[in-house]
Amino acid sequence: MHLYPSSLAALIEALRKLPGIGPKTAQRLALYLLHAPEGEAEGLAQAILDARKKIFFCSVCGNLTDADPCELCRDEKRDRSLLCVVEWPRDIIAFERTGEFSGVYHVLHGVLSPMDGIGPDDLKIADLLKRATKGDIKEVILATNPNVEGEATALYLAQLLKPIVPRVTRIAHGLPVGGDLEFADTATLSRSLLGRQVI
Amino acid sequence: MHLYPSSLAALIEALRKLPGIGPKTAQRLALYLLHAPEGEAEGLAQAILDARKKIFFCSVCGNLTDADPCELCRDEKRDRSLLCVVEWPRDIIAFERTGEFSGVYHVLHGVLSPMDGIGPDDLKIADLLKRATKGDIKEVILATNPNVEGEATALYLAQLLKPIVPRVTRIAHGLPVGGDLEFADTATLSRSLLGRQVI
Repeated sequence: MHLYPSSLAALIEALRKLPGIGPKTAQRLALYLLHAPEGEAEGLAQAILDARKKIFFCSVCGNLTDADPCELCRDEKRDRSLLCVVEWPRDIIAFERTGEFSGVYHVLHGVLSPMDGIGPDDLKIADLLKRATKGDIKEVILATNPNVEGEATALYLAQLLKPIVPRVTRIAHGLPVGGDLEFADTATLSRSLLGRQVI
Repeated sequence: MHLYPSSLAALIEALRKLPGIGPKTAQRLALYLLHAPEGEAEGLAQAILDARKKIFFCSVCGNLTDADPCELCRDEKRDRSLLCVVEWPRDIIAFERTGEFSGVYHVLHGVLSPMDGIGPDDLKIADLLKRATKGDIKEVILATNPNVEGEATALYLAQLLKPIVPRVTRIAHGLPVGGDLEFADTATLSRSLLGRQVI
Protein backbone atom coordinates (compact mmCIF):
# COMPACT_ATOMS: atom_id res chain seq x y z
CA MET A 1 0.00 0.00 0.00
CA HIS A 2 1.22 3.50 -0.80
CA LEU A 3 1.08 5.84 2.17
CA TYR A 4 -0.09 8.77 0.06
CA PRO A 5 -2.07 9.26 -3.14
CA SER A 6 0.45 9.77 -5.98
CA SER A 7 -0.02 13.51 -6.50
CA LEU A 8 0.40 14.11 -2.75
CA ALA A 9 3.54 11.95 -2.76
CA ALA A 10 4.86 14.01 -5.69
CA LEU A 11 4.23 17.25 -3.77
CA ILE A 12 6.00 15.92 -0.65
CA GLU A 13 8.92 14.80 -2.81
CA ALA A 14 9.18 18.23 -4.44
CA LEU A 15 9.09 19.99 -1.06
CA ARG A 16 11.80 17.69 0.34
CA LYS A 17 14.24 18.98 -2.24
CA LEU A 18 14.17 22.42 -0.59
CA PRO A 19 17.11 23.15 1.73
CA GLY A 20 16.44 22.42 5.40
CA ILE A 21 13.14 20.66 4.70
CA GLY A 22 13.12 17.07 5.97
CA PRO A 23 10.49 14.39 5.40
CA LYS A 24 8.32 15.40 8.39
CA THR A 25 8.29 19.09 7.49
CA ALA A 26 7.63 18.26 3.83
CA GLN A 27 4.60 16.19 4.85
CA ARG A 28 3.32 18.96 7.14
CA LEU A 29 3.74 21.61 4.44
CA ALA A 30 2.09 19.41 1.79
CA LEU A 31 -0.95 18.72 3.99
CA TYR A 32 -1.15 22.43 4.79
CA LEU A 33 -1.03 23.34 1.10
CA LEU A 34 -3.79 20.83 0.32
CA HIS A 35 -6.17 22.59 2.67
CA ALA A 36 -4.81 26.13 2.54
CA PRO A 37 -7.33 28.94 2.01
CA GLU A 38 -8.56 29.31 -1.58
CA GLY A 39 -5.87 30.84 -3.79
CA GLU A 40 -3.00 30.63 -1.28
CA ALA A 41 -1.44 27.42 -2.65
CA GLU A 42 -2.10 28.53 -6.24
CA GLY A 43 -0.57 31.91 -5.32
CA LEU A 44 2.61 30.21 -4.12
CA ALA A 45 2.84 28.12 -7.30
CA GLN A 46 2.37 31.25 -9.41
CA ALA A 47 4.91 33.22 -7.33
CA ILE A 48 7.52 30.49 -7.94
CA LEU A 49 6.90 30.53 -11.70
CA ASP A 50 6.87 34.36 -11.81
CA ALA A 51 10.10 34.74 -9.87
CA ARG A 52 11.85 32.15 -12.05
CA LYS A 53 10.71 33.97 -15.17
CA LYS A 54 11.31 37.58 -14.16
CA ILE A 55 14.37 37.64 -11.91
CA PHE A 56 17.87 37.84 -13.36
CA PHE A 57 21.24 39.40 -12.43
CA CYS A 58 21.91 43.12 -12.84
CA SER A 59 24.46 43.62 -15.64
CA VAL A 60 26.25 46.29 -13.59
CA CYS A 61 26.53 44.92 -10.04
CA GLY A 62 25.28 41.32 -10.30
CA ASN A 63 22.43 41.82 -7.82
CA LEU A 64 19.08 40.07 -8.25
CA THR A 65 16.71 42.27 -10.20
CA ASP A 66 13.67 42.34 -12.45
CA ALA A 67 14.90 45.40 -14.41
CA ASP A 68 18.37 46.13 -15.78
CA PRO A 69 20.26 47.91 -14.26
CA CYS A 70 18.85 47.11 -10.82
CA GLU A 71 17.08 49.56 -8.51
CA LEU A 72 20.28 50.15 -6.52
CA CYS A 73 22.37 50.89 -9.61
CA ARG A 74 19.67 53.21 -11.01
CA ASP A 75 19.29 55.14 -7.73
CA GLU A 76 20.76 58.63 -8.35
CA LYS A 77 21.13 59.30 -4.62
CA ARG A 78 23.67 56.55 -4.03
CA ASP A 79 27.37 57.31 -3.84
CA ARG A 80 28.99 55.72 -6.91
CA SER A 81 32.49 56.43 -5.58
CA LEU A 82 32.01 53.93 -2.74
CA LEU A 83 31.88 50.28 -3.84
CA CYS A 84 31.09 47.38 -1.51
CA VAL A 85 32.14 43.92 -2.73
CA VAL A 86 30.04 41.00 -1.45
CA GLU A 87 29.82 37.28 -2.15
CA TRP A 88 26.10 36.86 -2.83
CA PRO A 89 23.00 38.96 -3.55
CA ARG A 90 21.67 38.02 -0.08
CA ASP A 91 24.61 39.91 1.45
CA ILE A 92 23.34 43.10 -0.24
CA ILE A 93 20.00 42.57 1.48
CA ALA A 94 21.80 42.20 4.83
CA PHE A 95 23.72 45.48 4.35
CA GLU A 96 20.65 47.35 3.06
CA ARG A 97 18.79 46.31 6.22
CA THR A 98 21.33 48.25 8.30
CA GLY A 99 20.51 51.44 6.40
CA GLU A 100 24.14 52.52 7.01
CA PHE A 101 25.55 52.12 3.53
CA SER A 102 24.81 54.60 0.76
CA GLY A 103 27.33 53.41 -1.85
CA VAL A 104 26.89 50.79 -4.57
CA TYR A 105 27.62 47.08 -4.59
CA HIS A 106 29.44 44.46 -6.60
CA VAL A 107 28.46 40.80 -6.25
CA LEU A 108 31.22 38.24 -6.82
CA HIS A 109 28.79 35.30 -6.96
CA GLY A 110 31.02 33.17 -4.78
CA VAL A 111 34.47 33.11 -3.19
CA LEU A 112 37.81 31.65 -4.19
CA SER A 113 37.79 28.04 -3.09
CA PRO A 114 40.49 25.83 -4.60
CA MET A 115 39.02 22.81 -2.78
CA ASP A 116 35.80 23.23 -4.79
CA GLY A 117 37.70 24.15 -7.95
CA ILE A 118 36.51 27.77 -7.86
CA GLY A 119 39.21 30.13 -9.16
CA PRO A 120 39.25 33.86 -10.06
CA ASP A 121 37.71 33.18 -13.49
CA ASP A 122 34.60 31.67 -11.92
CA LEU A 123 33.83 34.89 -10.03
CA LYS A 124 32.86 38.36 -11.29
CA ILE A 125 36.39 39.65 -10.63
CA ALA A 126 37.12 40.85 -14.19
CA ASP A 127 33.90 42.94 -14.06
CA LEU A 128 34.97 44.34 -10.70
CA LEU A 129 38.38 45.41 -12.01
CA LYS A 130 36.71 46.99 -15.05
CA ARG A 131 34.37 48.98 -12.78
CA ALA A 132 37.27 49.98 -10.54
CA THR A 133 39.37 51.16 -13.49
CA LYS A 134 36.62 52.97 -15.38
CA GLY A 135 34.51 54.51 -12.63
CA ASP A 136 35.51 57.34 -10.37
CA ILE A 137 35.84 55.06 -7.35
CA LYS A 138 37.38 56.42 -4.14
CA GLU A 139 37.01 53.37 -1.92
CA VAL A 140 36.35 49.67 -2.30
CA ILE A 141 35.06 47.89 0.81
CA LEU A 142 35.77 44.16 0.76
CA ALA A 143 32.80 42.57 2.54
CA THR A 144 33.31 38.87 1.88
CA ASN A 145 32.45 36.54 4.78
CA PRO A 146 34.82 36.37 7.78
CA ASN A 147 35.88 32.77 7.09
CA VAL A 148 38.92 31.19 5.43
CA GLU A 149 37.65 31.48 1.85
CA GLY A 150 36.27 34.97 2.43
CA GLU A 151 39.54 36.23 3.93
CA ALA A 152 41.62 34.70 1.13
CA THR A 153 39.35 36.26 -1.49
CA ALA A 154 39.56 39.65 0.23
CA LEU A 155 43.38 39.51 0.32
CA TYR A 156 43.50 38.47 -3.33
CA LEU A 157 41.17 41.29 -4.38
CA ALA A 158 43.07 43.82 -2.23
CA GLN A 159 46.28 43.05 -4.13
CA LEU A 160 44.54 43.57 -7.48
CA LEU A 161 42.66 46.71 -6.42
CA LYS A 162 45.33 48.62 -4.50
CA PRO A 163 47.17 49.80 -7.66
CA ILE A 164 43.98 51.22 -9.22
CA VAL A 165 41.82 52.42 -6.30
CA PRO A 166 42.85 55.11 -3.76
CA ARG A 167 41.52 53.20 -0.74
CA VAL A 168 40.76 49.50 -0.25
CA THR A 169 39.22 48.47 3.10
CA ARG A 170 38.01 45.30 4.81
CA ILE A 171 34.95 45.17 7.08
CA ALA A 172 35.83 45.04 10.80
CA HIS A 173 36.16 41.81 12.75
CA GLY A 174 35.43 41.66 16.47
CA LEU A 175 32.79 40.82 19.01
CA PRO A 176 29.22 40.80 17.71
CA VAL A 177 27.01 43.44 19.33
CA GLY A 178 25.04 41.89 22.19
CA GLY A 179 27.56 39.08 22.39
CA ASP A 180 29.35 37.84 25.48
CA LEU A 181 33.14 37.85 26.04
CA GLU A 182 32.87 34.57 27.89
CA PHE A 183 31.48 32.75 24.86
CA ALA A 184 33.60 34.41 22.17
CA ASP A 185 36.07 32.15 20.37
CA THR A 186 39.78 32.96 20.70
CA ALA A 187 40.16 34.06 17.07
CA THR A 188 37.33 36.59 17.39
CA LEU A 189 38.69 37.83 20.72
CA SER A 190 42.19 38.26 19.23
CA ARG A 191 40.72 40.25 16.34
CA SER A 192 38.74 42.43 18.74
CA LEU A 193 42.02 43.32 20.52
CA LEU A 194 43.97 43.91 17.28
CA GLY A 195 41.18 46.06 15.87
CA ARG A 196 40.68 48.13 19.04
CA GLN A 197 39.82 51.78 18.51
CA VAL A 198 40.26 54.97 20.56
CA ILE A 199 36.98 56.10 22.13
CA MET B 1 14.48 51.39 -1.65
CA HIS B 2 12.84 47.97 -1.80
CA LEU B 3 15.06 45.20 -0.49
CA TYR B 4 13.93 42.75 -3.18
CA PRO B 5 12.64 42.96 -6.75
CA SER B 6 8.85 42.73 -6.61
CA SER B 7 8.43 39.17 -7.91
CA LEU B 8 11.03 37.94 -5.40
CA ALA B 9 9.23 39.83 -2.61
CA ALA B 10 5.98 38.16 -3.71
CA LEU B 11 7.59 34.72 -3.56
CA ILE B 12 9.01 35.37 -0.07
CA GLU B 13 5.59 36.61 1.07
CA ALA B 14 3.89 33.47 -0.31
CA LEU B 15 6.44 31.18 1.40
CA ARG B 16 6.02 33.00 4.73
CA LYS B 17 2.38 31.97 4.84
CA LEU B 18 3.43 28.31 5.21
CA PRO B 19 3.33 26.95 8.77
CA GLY B 20 6.65 27.10 10.61
CA ILE B 21 8.31 29.22 7.92
CA GLY B 22 9.61 32.55 9.28
CA PRO B 23 11.03 35.50 7.34
CA LYS B 24 14.61 34.16 7.30
CA THR B 25 13.64 30.70 6.10
CA ALA B 26 11.28 32.18 3.52
CA GLN B 27 14.14 34.29 2.14
CA ARG B 28 16.48 31.29 2.06
CA LEU B 29 13.91 29.10 0.30
CA ALA B 30 13.07 31.84 -2.22
CA LEU B 31 16.73 32.40 -3.11
CA TYR B 32 17.19 28.64 -3.41
CA LEU B 33 14.15 28.33 -5.70
CA LEU B 34 15.48 31.16 -7.89
CA HIS B 35 18.65 29.22 -8.60
CA ALA B 36 17.40 25.65 -8.23
CA PRO B 37 18.35 23.19 -10.98
CA GLU B 38 16.30 23.51 -14.18
CA GLY B 39 12.80 22.15 -13.69
CA GLU B 40 12.96 21.73 -9.91
CA ALA B 41 11.17 24.97 -9.01
CA GLU B 42 8.70 24.55 -11.87
CA GLY B 43 8.18 20.95 -10.69
CA LEU B 44 7.27 22.17 -7.21
CA ALA B 45 4.83 24.72 -8.63
CA GLN B 46 3.22 22.03 -10.79
CA ALA B 47 3.09 19.56 -7.88
CA ILE B 48 1.21 22.13 -5.77
CA LEU B 49 -1.33 22.76 -8.54
CA ASP B 50 -1.71 19.02 -9.27
CA ALA B 51 -2.24 18.07 -5.65
CA ARG B 52 -4.84 20.82 -5.19
CA LYS B 53 -6.70 19.64 -8.28
CA LYS B 54 -6.58 15.86 -7.79
CA ILE B 55 -6.75 15.18 -4.05
CA PHE B 56 -10.09 14.93 -2.25
CA PHE B 57 -11.60 13.00 0.67
CA CYS B 58 -12.64 9.36 0.36
CA SER B 59 -16.43 9.12 0.56
CA VAL B 60 -16.17 6.02 2.78
CA CYS B 61 -13.46 6.77 5.37
CA GLY B 62 -12.61 10.45 4.85
CA ASN B 63 -8.93 9.77 4.03
CA LEU B 64 -7.05 11.82 1.42
CA THR B 65 -7.26 10.15 -1.98
CA ASP B 66 -7.12 10.67 -5.72
CA ALA B 67 -9.66 7.90 -6.41
CA ASP B 68 -12.97 7.14 -4.66
CA PRO B 69 -13.08 4.99 -2.55
CA CYS B 70 -9.47 5.33 -1.43
CA GLU B 71 -6.78 2.67 -1.82
CA LEU B 72 -7.26 1.52 1.79
CA CYS B 73 -11.03 1.15 1.44
CA ARG B 74 -10.62 -0.71 -1.89
CA ASP B 75 -8.00 -3.12 -0.51
CA GLU B 76 -9.68 -6.56 -0.29
CA LYS B 77 -7.07 -7.84 2.15
CA ARG B 78 -7.96 -5.42 4.92
CA ASP B 79 -10.18 -6.49 7.80
CA ARG B 80 -13.44 -4.54 7.48
CA SER B 81 -14.64 -5.71 10.90
CA LEU B 82 -11.93 -3.66 12.63
CA LEU B 83 -12.41 0.10 12.45
CA CYS B 84 -9.85 2.63 13.71
CA VAL B 85 -11.16 6.16 14.33
CA VAL B 86 -8.61 8.98 13.94
CA GLU B 87 -8.72 12.77 13.93
CA TRP B 88 -6.91 13.56 10.69
CA PRO B 89 -5.70 11.85 7.51
CA ARG B 90 -2.11 12.30 8.72
CA ASP B 91 -2.90 9.97 11.64
CA ILE B 92 -3.68 7.21 9.12
CA ILE B 93 -0.22 7.69 7.64
CA ALA B 94 1.29 7.37 11.12
CA PHE B 95 -0.56 4.09 11.80
CA GLU B 96 0.20 2.69 8.34
CA ARG B 97 3.90 3.34 8.96
CA THR B 98 3.78 0.90 11.91
CA GLY B 99 2.56 -1.87 9.59
CA GLU B 100 0.68 -3.30 12.62
CA PHE B 101 -2.88 -2.45 11.67
CA SER B 102 -4.78 -4.38 9.03
CA GLY B 103 -8.27 -2.96 9.61
CA VAL B 104 -9.91 0.07 8.04
CA TYR B 105 -10.07 3.70 9.18
CA HIS B 106 -12.55 6.46 9.80
CA VAL B 107 -11.37 10.08 9.83
CA LEU B 108 -13.31 12.49 12.05
CA HIS B 109 -11.67 15.58 10.53
CA GLY B 110 -11.17 17.16 13.93
CA VAL B 111 -12.09 16.70 17.59
CA LEU B 112 -14.83 18.04 19.80
CA SER B 113 -13.66 21.42 21.02
CA PRO B 114 -16.32 23.66 22.56
CA MET B 115 -13.74 26.44 22.99
CA ASP B 116 -13.34 26.60 19.21
CA GLY B 117 -17.05 26.06 18.63
CA ILE B 118 -16.55 22.56 17.20
CA GLY B 119 -19.42 20.25 18.13
CA PRO B 120 -20.46 16.74 17.03
CA ASP B 121 -22.13 18.07 13.86
CA ASP B 122 -18.84 19.53 12.64
CA LEU B 123 -17.16 16.10 12.66
CA LYS B 124 -17.84 12.98 10.60
CA ILE B 125 -19.62 11.35 13.54
CA ALA B 126 -22.93 10.69 11.77
CA ASP B 127 -21.03 8.84 9.02
CA LEU B 128 -19.17 6.83 11.66
CA LEU B 129 -22.41 5.74 13.34
CA LYS B 130 -23.87 4.82 9.95
CA ARG B 131 -20.83 2.65 9.19
CA ALA B 132 -20.95 1.09 12.65
CA THR B 133 -24.68 0.26 12.29
CA LYS B 134 -24.58 -1.01 8.71
CA GLY B 135 -21.27 -2.81 8.51
CA ASP B 136 -20.34 -6.03 10.23
CA ILE B 137 -17.98 -4.29 12.65
CA LYS B 138 -16.57 -6.27 15.58
CA GLU B 139 -14.35 -3.63 17.13
CA VAL B 140 -13.92 0.14 16.97
CA ILE B 141 -10.54 1.47 18.13
CA LEU B 142 -10.71 5.10 19.24
CA ALA B 143 -7.36 6.59 18.26
CA THR B 144 -7.89 10.31 18.82
CA ASN B 145 -4.90 12.18 20.28
CA PRO B 146 -4.02 11.68 23.98
CA ASN B 147 -4.91 15.26 24.96
CA VAL B 148 -7.96 16.87 26.56
CA GLU B 149 -9.99 17.25 23.36
CA GLY B 150 -8.97 13.82 22.08
CA GLU B 151 -9.94 12.11 25.36
CA ALA B 152 -13.27 13.92 25.51
CA THR B 153 -14.04 12.99 21.91
CA ALA B 154 -13.10 9.35 22.57
CA LEU B 155 -15.39 9.20 25.63
CA TYR B 156 -18.24 10.82 23.70
CA LEU B 157 -17.84 8.36 20.80
CA ALA B 158 -17.56 5.39 23.17
CA GLN B 159 -20.99 6.22 24.65
CA LEU B 160 -22.53 6.38 21.18
CA LEU B 161 -20.81 3.26 19.86
CA LYS B 162 -21.14 0.86 22.81
CA PRO B 163 -24.84 0.08 22.14
CA ILE B 164 -24.20 -0.81 18.48
CA VAL B 165 -20.67 -2.32 18.38
CA PRO B 166 -19.54 -5.45 20.30
CA ARG B 167 -16.22 -3.97 21.39
CA VAL B 168 -15.03 -0.35 21.69
CA THR B 169 -11.39 0.23 22.67
CA ARG B 170 -9.05 3.15 23.27
CA ILE B 171 -5.36 3.12 22.26
CA ALA B 172 -3.00 2.59 25.22
CA HIS B 173 -1.39 5.43 27.15
CA GLY B 174 1.98 5.04 28.82
CA LEU B 175 5.66 5.69 28.44
CA PRO B 176 6.87 6.17 24.87
CA VAL B 177 9.27 3.46 23.70
CA GLY B 178 12.86 4.63 24.14
CA GLY B 179 11.67 7.24 26.66
CA ASP B 180 13.07 7.84 30.10
CA LEU B 181 11.18 7.47 33.40
CA GLU B 182 13.07 10.44 34.80
CA PHE B 183 11.71 12.81 32.17
CA ALA B 184 8.17 11.43 31.95
CA ASP B 185 5.41 13.76 33.18
CA THR B 186 3.30 12.62 36.14
CA ALA B 187 0.14 12.10 34.06
CA THR B 188 1.94 9.75 31.66
CA LEU B 189 3.59 7.92 34.54
CA SER B 190 0.22 7.46 36.31
CA ARG B 191 -1.28 6.09 33.10
CA SER B 192 1.63 3.70 32.69
CA LEU B 193 0.92 2.33 36.18
CA LEU B 194 -2.85 2.13 35.67
CA GLY B 195 -2.39 0.40 32.32
CA ARG B 196 0.23 -2.07 33.54
CA GLN B 197 0.03 -5.52 31.99
CA VAL B 198 1.07 -9.02 33.09
CA ILE B 199 4.23 -10.17 31.30
